[in-house]
Amino acid sequence: MAEIPDPRLATSHHELRVRFCETDMMAIVHHANYLVYCEAARVDWLHKRGVSYADWQRMGIQLPVVDVSIRYHKPARFEDVLDVETTLVELTRVSVRFRYFVKRAGVLLAEVGTQLACVGPELTVRRMPEDVARVFRSGEATST
Amino acid sequence: MAEIPDPRLATSHHELRVRFCETDMMAIVHHANYLVYCEAARVDWLHKRGVSYADWQRMGIQLPVVDVSIRYHKPARFEDVLDVETTLVELTRVSVRFRYFVKRAGVLLAEVGTQLACVGPELTVRRMPEDVARVFRSGEATST
Amino acid sequence: MAEIPDPRLATSHHELRVRFCETDMMAIVHHANYLVYCEAARVDWLHKRGVSYADWQRMGIQLPVVDVSIRYHKPARFEDVLDVETTLVELTRVSVRFRYFVKRAGVLLAEVGTQLACVGPELTVRRMPEDVARVFRSGEATST
Amino acid sequence: MAEIPDPRLATSHHELRVRFCETDMMAIVHHANYLVYCEAARVDWLHKRGVSYADWQRMGIQLPVVDVSIRYHKPARFEDVLDVETTLVELTRVSVRFRYFVKRAGVLLAEVGTQLACVGPELTVRRMPEDVARVFRSGEATST
Repeated sequence: MAEIPDPRLATSHHELRVRFCETDMMAIVHHANYLVYCEAARVDWLHKRGVSYADWQRMGIQLPVVDVSIRYHKPARFEDVLDVETTLVELTRVSVRFRYFVKRAGVLLAEVGTQLACVGPELTVRRMPEDVARVFRSGEATST
Repeated sequence: MAEIPDPRLATSHHELRVRFCETDMMAIVHHANYLVYCEAARVDWLHKRGVSYADWQRMGIQLPVVDVSIRYHKPARFEDVLDVETTLVELTRVSVRFRYFVKRAGVLLAEVGTQLACVGPELTVRRMPEDVARVFRSGEATST
Repeated sequence: MAEIPDPRLATSHHELRVRFCETDMMAIVHHANYLVYCEAARVDWLHKRGVSYADWQRMGIQLPVVDVSIRYHKPARFEDVLDVETTLVELTRVSVRFRYFVKRAGVLLAEVGTQLACVGPELTVRRMPEDVARVFRSGEATST
Repeated sequence: MAEIPDPRLATSHHELRVRFCETDMMAIVHHANYLVYCEAARVDWLHKRGVSYADWQRMGIQLPVVDVSIRYHKPARFEDVLDVETTLVELTRVSVRFRYFVKRAGVLLAEVGTQLACVGPELTVRRMPEDVARVFRSGEATST
């Protein structure tokens, strides 16, 4: 069954600066890069809960993206400092869902949703280990 | 009002080979690259109707992506030859929608949807010129 | 000792079309993408000699890039059709060197050189297996 | 004539964390991404001297990369924190050269060199404005 995480714990912020190579000839951030930004924000979300996703990978825990939705409101541009507000919005026995608000100076540029499935070495879906699920239920560590 | 294009005209196929740099450490195509593949397929869809998107750009006609959805079914891998089946599914006075089936040897790997808005030089939405709309209603040119 | 391959056999051509996402806000191809183009050309060079680099990867033969030089002469732009002329210029017991001329309609846009080392699973340099070296000495297969 | 900048002023450091999407199926950072890292470091080098490269772009000052050399010593991996030590090593009337040491915990992973040319709107080489040259001669601002 799907579980809705405690909203007071489920959100973290990731700040990044738009790189030159992330722009395209419209002089705005190319639309595929928002998935890159959300991925970086998600890895940081885990960091802030004491977990390295690289360690999970080495332990055979992989969480590939299985579903994406993006709504683009305003373009981001080179050198913009973006805030990616990342919230865990659903946890099931085999998957998690995150929602992201990409903002510049408080203005919403894009809303993103991703679902990630827990898979084993052969990329077949597996039940999420309890240690992993516990991380998704937790809030930011008080000292990082 | 939204217009549904003639399904006999609205579909084209784009073939591509997965590049090494498009893989990630899971040894599969990184999920953001499907947007790159669909963009290449869309540009090719226009080519097959006698239009260069680069020419449109020079004429001030830009069609940024404003909405994306992706459902990933199976991973693509390095050197895979992919077929991106691209269909125009909706045309309005200011936007178009495409749906894509990314397949390998007939097997569906991912379904993608994108909406593109017609914008002017300042990226403000504008009514699509009739010449542009006519291209979206047309089928593949008989000789390219 | 370094071996200079037979120049009549060592060259192949790879054609590609510049993708929208490969441009940057200068409206030219971002300079890092030339490494992507040369990598695609190199994989194709192997294909034309009957070898899949993906198969080599699965057999534990990896050839990471250890040295790069690029001289940019003229910019490439969106939708340009590029010809990457790829020549094996040196073969040693543990490495190979390729030189690339990236051209558009016969005009030289960039010259690239790469050296690749043969490494084992732990990325330590190893002697190139004779089967692999033989491929580097061979010309394009007559039927592909 | 080429001018060698004051070595006490010419160096800055840029720290970044390797993103998941920057890895490839060898589970190391794809070799093209070092150019991305150096570009980010170069933009940051300017920031630390009070300049936004985005502002320069808007003023018509562009500095495309015209020459690159890279020597890869050890691979970088996902989540690595990298230090890009960036030094201006040459300044002429129309170009600048930077040298970069990409390190992880003090260990050298790659050495990179880039030359950038000053160009005008049509990408033709132009003499560097004195305001721009002055920035390249300056050290980090004491307060940023």
